[in-house]
Amino acid sequence: MKNSSALQRSAVSEKENSKALFLAACRGEATPRVPVWMMRQAGRYLPEYRAIREKHSFLEVCKTPELAVEVSLQPVRRLGVDAAIVFSDILIPAEAMGMALELTDAGPVLPQPLREARAVEALREFDPEKETRFLMDSIRGLARELGTEMPVLGFAAAPWTLACYMVEGQTKSGFAATKQMLYAAPQTLRALLEKIARVTARYLRAQIAAGAAAVQLFDTWAGELSRDDYEAFALPAVQQVLAELSAPDDVPVIYYSKASRHLLRALPRSGADVLSVDWRIDLGEARRRLGAHTALQGNVDPCVLLGPAEGVTAAAQRAIGQTGGVAHILNLGHGILPETPVENAQAFVRAAKSAADAV
Amino acid sequence: MKNSSALQRSAVSEKENSKALFLAACRGEATPRVPVWMMRQAGRYLPEYRAIREKHSFLEVCKTPELAVEVSLQPVRRLGVDAAIVFSDILIPAEAMGMALELTDAGPVLPQPLREARAVEALREFDPEKETRFLMDSIRGLARELGTEMPVLGFAAAPWTLACYMVEGQTKSGFAATKQMLYAAPQTLRALLEKIARVTARYLRAQIAAGAAAVQLFDTWAGELSRDDYEAFALPAVQQVLAELSAPDDVPVIYYSKASRHLLRALPRSGADVLSVDWRIDLGEARRRLGAHTALQGNVDPCVLLGPAEGVTAAAQRAIGQTGGVAHILNLGHGILPETPVENAQAFVRAAKSAADAV
Repeated sequence: MKNSSALQRSAVSEKENSKALFLAACRGEATPRVPVWMMRQAGRYLPEYRAIREKHSFLEVCKTPELAVEVSLQPVRRLGVDAAIVFSDILIPAEAMGMALELTDAGPVLPQPLREARAVEALREFDPEKETRFLMDSIRGLARELGTEMPVLGFAAAPWTLACYMVEGQTKSGFAATKQMLYAAPQTLRALLEKIARVTARYLRAQIAAGAAAVQLFDTWAGELSRDDYEAFALPAVQQVLAELSAPDDVPVIYYSKASRHLLRALPRSGADVLSVDWRIDLGEARRRLGAHTALQGNVDPCVLLGPAEGVTAAAQRAIGQTGGVAHILNLGHGILPETPVENAQAFVRAAKSAADAV
Repeated sequence: MKNSSALQRSAVSEKENSKALFLAACRGEATPRVPVWMMRQAGRYLPEYRAIREKHSFLEVCKTPELAVEVSLQPVRRLGVDAAIVFSDILIPAEAMGMALELTDAGPVLPQPLREARAVEALREFDPEKETRFLMDSIRGLARELGTEMPVLGFAAAPWTLACYMVEGQTKSGFAATKQMLYAAPQTLRALLEKIARVTARYLRAQIAAGAAAVQLFDTWAGELSRDDYEAFALPAVQQVLAELSAPDDVPVIYYSKASRHLLRALPRSGADVLSVDWRIDLGEARRRLGAHTALQGNVDPCVLLGPAEGVTAAAQRAIGQTGGVAHILNLGHGILPETPVENAQAFVRAAKSAADAV
């Protein structure tokens, strides 16, 4: 990539080493300043991303390491974030397991949703280095470009969230089909979650082997469940992923859940090193309830970045203030929105970098 | 209505008087058994409702008191619920305020969403007895049909939730346009909320005058906000509705919010007599935190009714067990789903009626 040497210089010239900062925060340590990145930071709000997407479909970018590396680097260059998450989609493993996948502008669609035990049995436990080799190549490429001072993040959907997409076929308010399976055919859902958990552990292990410095599990739809159902279905599946993944001590696992205030007491039992939460969880309250050893990531509402830049700075500072900047990775509570002004994304990152004095 | 005399007899023959039960629970009292009804109980899961909707559009039914009364009575006859909510839609006031409204099968659509201060100023503060007379006539008709032993429930959207529809134009995940107004033009959103609050107070007052024994405010999208933003925008608007409504002491106000666990401590400050919550709030925990004087309504996940009937009974019993049946109206956490088997809706109601022995 043509900009890589400039990038390396800029990373080195920073007082802080992003990777060291990031991993220290994940370990639950106080850091000179909070590290910062944004979910979906390689995305439509960036003109250079839109330029690539004009010529290539979303899936094409995912499956072409050169393109995936390029768009993953764009927010590092443009915003100076402290981590580069590899460009991919949480539904890539669904496709590798044998389901047809379309990524439309209105969101992902699985045209043959999974509804029966037989369909669960037919899902393939694929070999990630073979069937999703493009992703491992992208991670290897990114790690090469970024060198030793900038972490590459790998990721996957948590089993419950991937199961929701597989059973619904698309994002559906209420997730009635998946919950119908939960209540009417719990053993089918459990078999599905266990299969996804096995596949996901192997998939994340391959990403770590390829060079991911940390991995994030996205449990976007965990908050749809009551605490009882979460503890009976979604949580054990996350625990299974972490147990089978058995990540090296220096590779932290981040567990993201949305709208999960009612699950707060259960989330640490996931076993993850970092809990990534949204604006519905007050970081100060989470810290008080969970203790200083649970690192936190989040939690600004991405809609704040649609308002004035001063509001963005204030919201970022408020989030940092709630943790005192200890064991905290500044992030949004959900993916950055396509209509976000780039200046506001920059203001968000700047707030973390200039909060060093305040903390 | 041809079935009304049979209905009256059956209500009288019940050991308990539904209206007395319902109002006692709202007042925070222990009752011989929990009263029960279901949000969206006049709906597509009932064949007799579908028969009427084959001949009439949703808005036609809303605006034709004879039809609205008929569909409102259907769940009373079929299920034996303890309250009849008048058939209407939370967007009816948006139309009466001057916005075009279409109710499609995919949900409500306001084809000219409201984005600017000028559009807020142009909204009319309508006279409910004139411009929504059909609703008042429906309530009068229902009250006449049901007599003194069955409560008629009126309702409206809470201001924040109605504002979400008005600004988005439809249900949109994330409500970015409304939140953009909140962050970028807070004075415009505040003017909108205050105007809706004034209109809503008058609208509910008219429903009470027409014979509503209780009224419910639906704040379906309250849970989208952080607690700070909820307390700064949505909550004051609800408080304004209740202050201006100044409901008679014997007409309780029920305040529904979805996915609002993170708002739990703020909800009682709404001033409502009853808090209606979903499966993300444990009723036992809510009771412990809010005290026995806050009546609770809810909270079974409507998806439970897509599973086996025994699961429905168990979930209803669990909810009742969490409050000990004190100051509790059994309900769902959101509207009953169109694909719900009628037997499961009946099992839900039966669970309340047969829990008398257990409590």
